[in-house]
Amino acid sequence: MELPARLGVSQLDEAYASGHLSPIEVVSHTLRRIESLDPVLNSYISVTAERALQQARRAESEIRAGRRIGPLHGVPYAAKDLLDTRGIRTTVGSRILAENVPAHDAAVVEKLSAAGAILLGKTGLHEWAYGITSSNPHFGPVCNPWNPQRIPGGSSGGSAAALAAGLCSFSLGSDTGGSIRIPAALCGIAGLKPTFGRISRRGAFPLGHTLDTLGPFGLTVHDTALVYRAITGPDKADPSTVDTSVDLPAFENEPSLRGVAIGLPRASYYEGLAPDVDSAVEAALRVVTDLGAELREVSVPDIALANSLHRLILLAEATSVHRRRLEERREDFGDDVRTLLDQGQLVLATDYLDAQRQRRRFGREFARTLETVDALVLPAVPIPTARIGELEVDVNGRLENVRLATTRNIRALNLTGLPVLSVPCGFHSDGLPIGLQIVGKAFDERQILQIGHAYETATQWHEQVPIMGRRPNPSDTDPSAP
Amino acid sequence: MELPARLGVSQLDEAYASGHLSPIEVVSHTLRRIESLDPVLNSYISVTAERALQQARRAESEIRAGRRIGPLHGVPYAAKDLLDTRGIRTTVGSRILAENVPAHDAAVVEKLSAAGAILLGKTGLHEWAYGITSSNPHFGPVCNPWNPQRIPGGSSGGSAAALAAGLCSFSLGSDTGGSIRIPAALCGIAGLKPTFGRISRRGAFPLGHTLDTLGPFGLTVHDTALVYRAITGPDKADPSTVDTSVDLPAFENEPSLRGVAIGLPRASYYEGLAPDVDSAVEAALRVVTDLGAELREVSVPDIALANSLHRLILLAEATSVHRRRLEERREDFGDDVRTLLDQGQLVLATDYLDAQRQRRRFGREFARTLETVDALVLPAVPIPTARIGELEVDVNGRLENVRLATTRNIRALNLTGLPVLSVPCGFHSDGLPIGLQIVGKAFDERQILQIGHAYETATQWHEQVPIMGRRPNPSDTDPSAP
Repeated sequence: MELPARLGVSQLDEAYASGHLSPIEVVSHTLRRIESLDPVLNSYISVTAERALQQARRAESEIRAGRRIGPLHGVPYAAKDLLDTRGIRTTVGSRILAENVPAHDAAVVEKLSAAGAILLGKTGLHEWAYGITSSNPHFGPVCNPWNPQRIPGGSSGGSAAALAAGLCSFSLGSDTGGSIRIPAALCGIAGLKPTFGRISRRGAFPLGHTLDTLGPFGLTVHDTALVYRAITGPDKADPSTVDTSVDLPAFENEPSLRGVAIGLPRASYYEGLAPDVDSAVEAALRVVTDLGAELREVSVPDIALANSLHRLILLAEATSVHRRRLEERREDFGDDVRTLLDQGQLVLATDYLDAQRQRRRFGREFARTLETVDALVLPAVPIPTARIGELEVDVNGRLENVRLATTRNIRALNLTGLPVLSVPCGFHSDGLPIGLQIVGKAFDERQILQIGHAYETATQWHEQVPIMGRRPNPSDTDPSAP
Repeated sequence: MELPARLGVSQLDEAYASGHLSPIEVVSHTLRRIESLDPVLNSYISVTAERALQQARRAESEIRAGRRIGPLHGVPYAAKDLLDTRGIRTTVGSRILAENVPAHDAAVVEKLSAAGAILLGKTGLHEWAYGITSSNPHFGPVCNPWNPQRIPGGSSGGSAAALAAGLCSFSLGSDTGGSIRIPAALCGIAGLKPTFGRISRRGAFPLGHTLDTLGPFGLTVHDTALVYRAITGPDKADPSTVDTSVDLPAFENEPSLRGVAIGLPRASYYEGLAPDVDSAVEAALRVVTDLGAELREVSVPDIALANSLHRLILLAEATSVHRRRLEERREDFGDDVRTLLDQGQLVLATDYLDAQRQRRRFGREFARTLETVDALVLPAVPIPTARIGELEVDVNGRLENVRLATTRNIRALNLTGLPVLSVPCGFHSDGLPIGLQIVGKAFDERQILQIGHAYETATQWHEQVPIMGRRPNPSDTDPSAP
C-alpha cells in the first residue's frame, strides 16, 4: 500500500485506531523518506533510525494488545537539536557541542515518551538558536521544502522543514524572538508559541532565559493542539512554569467564529507588507469575517521601541550564556553569531534593567488592548522568503535586512509572554508560503486554537504539499499557489 | 495613671480587651513621648498627630461598641518613609521627594488600616534606603536610643529606634541587604524579613527589586508575628507575591524546642566576631540547647562570594532605579549614595546576569543545607555599633569598614529569599544591643517564630528598655547590660 507523503497526528490517530496503519509501517515509511529527501533538505542533524524502529515495534504490540495511550502513541516526531535527549547527541547547532551526549531527557521529551511518541531524530537549527535563517556554518544550511534555495526560517528551521516535507508527523521547536513562528510561516505549517510559563524548559539549551518558550509544529491546528497539550505542565526545575489548566477547543467539523471579536493592530503590524502578504492577509480577514467573527481596529504600543527592547534584552542574555565559551573558543562560533555575542558584551546592566522595566509596561499595555477583544490577527513575516546566504531582500523596491524585516512583526510578542499561533494563509507569487499570526490572552491558547482551526477548516492552505514533500513526479516542478 | 514606657501589640491587645486602656490614652501618651524624645532621637520624618488622634477616637468608639477587629485595632504604629501613604508626604529620605505626597497607600499600609492599626507617622531612613547608618544628609541622623551618639542601623533605622524607645507599638521596615535585621539587632528589638513573595511591595519605593522585602519590627516575637500575619498575602500588582497559607506558632508560655534541629554554619558565619558578640551568641546557643533543641554544625556555600554577588546585583538594580534622577539632580544626592549609584553605572549586563545565575545556585545550595535541619542560627551584626559619622570600627584590633562588616553575615541572605528573624541576645560592654539571626526554610516563618519565641521566653533581653525609652531619671545614665 502506498502511503501519503505526509501523515499528521490526527490522521495517524484514526489509522491506528482503525488498524489501517501500524507504527512500524509509518516509522519505516518516514525513515525512507528521510533517507531519500534529507540529503538535499538537510533538516536533521541526527536520525535515530534503529531506536525509532525498536520503539515502533513496542508501540505496535501495545496498540495491538489494545493498550493505546493516546493520540501520540506510535506517532513519529522530530525534536529541535537544543532539546536534551538521553544518549543521543544534542549539538545546539554548534561545533563546540558536536559530541555532546546528555545524560537526561529534556522535560518535553520525557512527556512525549510518556505519551508514546517516537523520536525520529534531532533537527537542524540556527547555531545556538541565535538567528532566523538556519543556515548553519557547521552542519550546513537547512533548506526550505518549497524551494531548496530558500531559507526555511529559524531558528527551528529543521523542525519546520522536516514536518512540511513529511519527514515526521509533528515536531518541536523553541521561540525566543520568533523561532517557531517564522519557520512555521515560511514552511507553510502551523506553529504554536504557548504562553510563557506553560511548558518546562528543563533540558532545553537557553538563548534568552526571560524570553525562551518551547512549542509544537503541526500539519494542522488540531495536530498542534494535541502535541501542545501533551507537553504542558508545571515543573519545579523550571520556576517560570505555572500550574494552570489546559483547555482545548472542540475541533468541530464546521466551526463558527460567531461572537468572536478579533482586533487588527493595523497602524503598527500591517505596515510595509510585501504585496503578496498584504493580499493574502486581507483575504484571510474576509474568511474570518465570513465565519462570523467581528473585526475591530485596535492600537498597540510602539512596536519599533518594543523590538529594540527585545534586541537589547536578548543581546545581554545570550552573551551571558556564552561568555566563557566565547573567550575560550572564539573561532568555533559562526561569524553572525559571534558578532551578536560581541555586541552583547557592551550592554550595561542599567540598560538591561531599564529595558526589562519598559518591557513590563509594554506587556501591560498590550494585555490591556487584548482585554477589548478575544484575539489579535496580524501578518507573520512581512517580506518575501530570502535565498540562502542572502542578507537583504527587496520589499516594494526597497532593500531590507533579512533578519530585522523578518522578525519585525514577531519578536516583540516574546516580550509579552502571550500565546501566538501561526497558520499558513497563502503563497507568494514565487510559491513560498505566507503565515498569519493569531495572538491570544495569557493562558488562553484555547481561543487562538479555535480561531486557527476555524480558519483552516474554511481554507485549504494547510493541505498544500511542498515540492520536496510530494511523490516523485518529473512534471511537478511548479509549486503554484492554489 | 502612669503608662509604661513601651507598649507592645500583645500588651495593648490585653489592655484594650480588658478595658484597662483606650486607644485615645495610648495614642496621646505615645504622641507626648514623640514630642519629648524625638527632638534628640530623630526617628520620625513626619508625625501625623491629628490624624492619629482622630483614628484613635474612632477605634475607641468601635471597641467600646464591642466591634474590635483584631489584635492591631487601635494600636499605633510607624511606617518607614518609603511606604506610600495617601495624603501624607513620603520622602524616601531624599531631598528630591521632600514634598512628595502619594495618591495611594502602599499595600501594607492598606492592610494595616483594614486591621484597625493607627499610623503615627513616617520614620527616618538612610537616603533612598541605600545604606546601613540612617545618617541622613537631608533629615539628619537617626540616633540609637541606647546611646544617641551611635547609629541605630539601617536603612530602616527610624522604625527600629522609634519602637525601641517606645515611640510606637510596632513598626514597618524594608530589607534589601539587611535593612530590617541590622536596625533590629542594633536597637535591641525583634525584626522579621519574611520569605520573598510573602508581602506585596505595591507602593513601596524600590531599591533592588529582586531583593526588596517588607517586614515588621516588634518588641517581642509574638508582636512581630501578629503584624507579619496582618500584612501578608498575594497581590496582582506585585507579581512576585505568592498565595501560600500563613501559619503562626502557638506562642505558649513555656515553649519547648524538643525535636528541633538547629544548624550552625560555624565555618562561615561565626568568624571574625567581636568578643562580646561571640560570647552572647554562645550563651544563646546554650539557652537553645537547654530548651531541647539539637545543634548541628552545617556548612553553607561561600559567603564572601555571595556577598559580592549581592553587591553587584544591588549596584545595578539601584542605579537603574535612580539613573535619570542622578543625571538631572546629581547635587541632591548624599555623597555615599551618589558614589554607589555611580559605581552601578559601570556594571555590565552580562555580569549582572551571571551574578543572578550564581545567585540561583547559591540559593539552591543554601536551601539544601536547610533540608537537613529545621533552621539555622547565626550572629547578626558581628561588630560593635559605630558612632554616627564613623566609617571604620575596631574589631579585635583591626579596623573594619562599617558598611561591609555590619552586613557581612546578613546581606547574602537576601539572595536566597529565605525568612530570617532577628532577636536581641545580649549587650556589648558599651551597652549597645547584640542580635541573633534565625534563618528558616522558604515560607516556614512558623518555625523561626517558634524558635525566637522560645528563646525570648527563656531570656529577658527583649525586656530591657534603652536609656532613651526609660522614664526620666537623672541618675539613669549608665545603660549597663543586665
